[in-house]
Amino acid sequence: MFREKIKVLDCTIRDGGLINNHDFDLRFVRAVYKALSAAGVDYMEIGYKNSKRLFWPKEFGPWKFCDDDVIREVIDGIPSQTKISVMVDVDRVDIDDVVPRAESPVQMIRVASYVKDIDKAIHLVNHFAEKGYETTVNIMAISRALDNELSECLHQLENECRANVVYIVDSFGALYQETTEFLIKKAKSILKTKEVGMHGHNNQQLAFCNTIEAIIHDANFVDGTVYGLGRAAGNCPLELILGFLKNPKFDIRPVLDLISKEFIPLRNKIEWGYLIPYAITGILDEHPRSAMALRNSHKKEDYLEFYDGLVAEVEE
Amino acid sequence: MFREKIKVLDCTIRDGGLINNHDFDLRFVRAVYKALSAAGVDYMEIGYKNSKRLFWPKEFGPWKFCDDDVIREVIDGIPSQTKISVMVDVDRVDIDDVVPRAESPVQMIRVASYVKDIDKAIHLVNHFAEKGYETTVNIMAISRALDNELSECLHQLENECRANVVYIVDSFGALYQETTEFLIKKAKSILKTKEVGMHGHNNQQLAFCNTIEAIIHDANFVDGTVYGLGRAAGNCPLELILGFLKNPKFDIRPVLDLISKEFIPLRNKIEWGYLIPYAITGILDEHPRSAMALRNSHKKEDYLEFYDGLVAEVEE
Repeated sequence: MFREKIKVLDCTIRDGGLINNHDFDLRFVRAVYKALSAAGVDYMEIGYKNSKRLFWPKEFGPWKFCDDDVIREVIDGIPSQTKISVMVDVDRVDIDDVVPRAESPVQMIRVASYVKDIDKAIHLVNHFAEKGYETTVNIMAISRALDNELSECLHQLENECRANVVYIVDSFGALYQETTEFLIKKAKSILKTKEVGMHGHNNQQLAFCNTIEAIIHDANFVDGTVYGLGRAAGNCPLELILGFLKNPKFDIRPVLDLISKEFIPLRNKIEWGYLIPYAITGILDEHPRSAMALRNSHKKEDYLEFYDGLVAEVEE
Repeated sequence: MFREKIKVLDCTIRDGGLINNHDFDLRFVRAVYKALSAAGVDYMEIGYKNSKRLFWPKEFGPWKFCDDDVIREVIDGIPSQTKISVMVDVDRVDIDDVVPRAESPVQMIRVASYVKDIDKAIHLVNHFAEKGYETTVNIMAISRALDNELSECLHQLENECRANVVYIVDSFGALYQETTEFLIKKAKSILKTKEVGMHGHNNQQLAFCNTIEAIIHDANFVDGTVYGLGRAAGNCPLELILGFLKNPKFDIRPVLDLISKEFIPLRNKIEWGYLIPYAITGILDEHPRSAMALRNSHKKEDYLEFYDGLVAEVEE
């Protein structure tokens, strides 16, 4: 697939941070930034911009807050065209922490929101756009969105919001490609002035599949993470996206080397990827938190009991 | 997806046998058969029917030969509607080893063939059909088939071959869903009197995706393996197929339990699944043998060197 407008965003450190309290060391984050830059990846999302009044900094690594000075230490001295992105959650950011774009190493701010919080998301996006940032809205848990509410949400985004991109986020890894096609077409039909993006989760090994499907139907922003790192089943593997896209500006080689040197050792310390409990929550269109709790218990491989318990809960 | 005609074939023991010289013990194979039977899976492919004149039996486990008496030991005493399938390769079977269907515990014989060997495959299939078996032709390495040769092959199968089903086999895990759609539609347009099947490999995490895509375009036979067991990157995970299909005759629960009890311990002994060298051969549309050799060497995690070597070979 070659389409020059397609932009690849890597959110390895941001989504991966959900596994380890955002506690990657500076050397590791610089290695990721260096490889992504050499690979021609368009954006690197480096973490969340959370309010230090809501979260106690000593309990988390730096990528939960993404102070501009820490970001400057990451990028210092590394030749790069890769833009830096941070994510904010509705109700968790202190907008006064965000300086004007011209004074920050950050180029893009992505606002994650459920359909029900979209008014708050629009308010945040318009504020950040006013400060000069590229902006996106990432609609989470899209597999649970009712069609009429999603339609209203998309119309509001088109008419009231300055976001450059609106993302479909398959938080639960529940989408099959037929539904991805439906949602991307729907978004494209309403969002005449914005790009559409896709962020998949890999519970059913469909994150890459859904990303390709989104691209086929004209989504131009796609998210990946190195070796699929991310909470629970993880994300769409960046290396597969780079193998699929034909734009010669992308080079898979630095990412392959990065996986060898940094991600194989990391995989021995923290767990992510396709595991049956995450497949089960994906199939049932449930948040993976129950599966994550199972993986931290002595019953981590008791899949049938877990499945039966979850089905009983859903049916109640 | 609910379509009553869809049949699920599990080839865990057959494809998994390619990793361990077909040396699963009887207890394990009975556990798989019992779980598949309880899950409502339509077919279980239990191994290859290879000639003992070509392969020395002491060097392999029993599932490389699939003597009828050994199969009877597997199924003995287990209530089941699941039919038994065996695979034969062109030029490796002794047709006199195959007794008439009425005298055998085997119901289906699948003939694996490259496009170039299709005349031999047709000869074998018609012989087995004459003996009373259900039959299929599995067209291997379909990602390398030239379109005109594939067209001729499919017309021959339609006109000369008694196979009930013709399978598209993505041996190298190289297909994206667009090409799967193209191939399934092409096969359906020519094979008016036969069913079409899909057998995926998971090099790029697309085996399940391509299986869904095939189902969308009216393939009615799909292959899976428990927990994706299979050579190299493995196959389409059976548990995901059962989670996707809505026919109430299928029950995912026995398969989940089987994975807990048998496949998690097995995964600690033999390796399969998504690994970067297999992703690389999939992206490059190459046989995984070079990647399998790498995984058995001391350079198993040296991905960049492997990639560069393979690209240089391809370009020569």
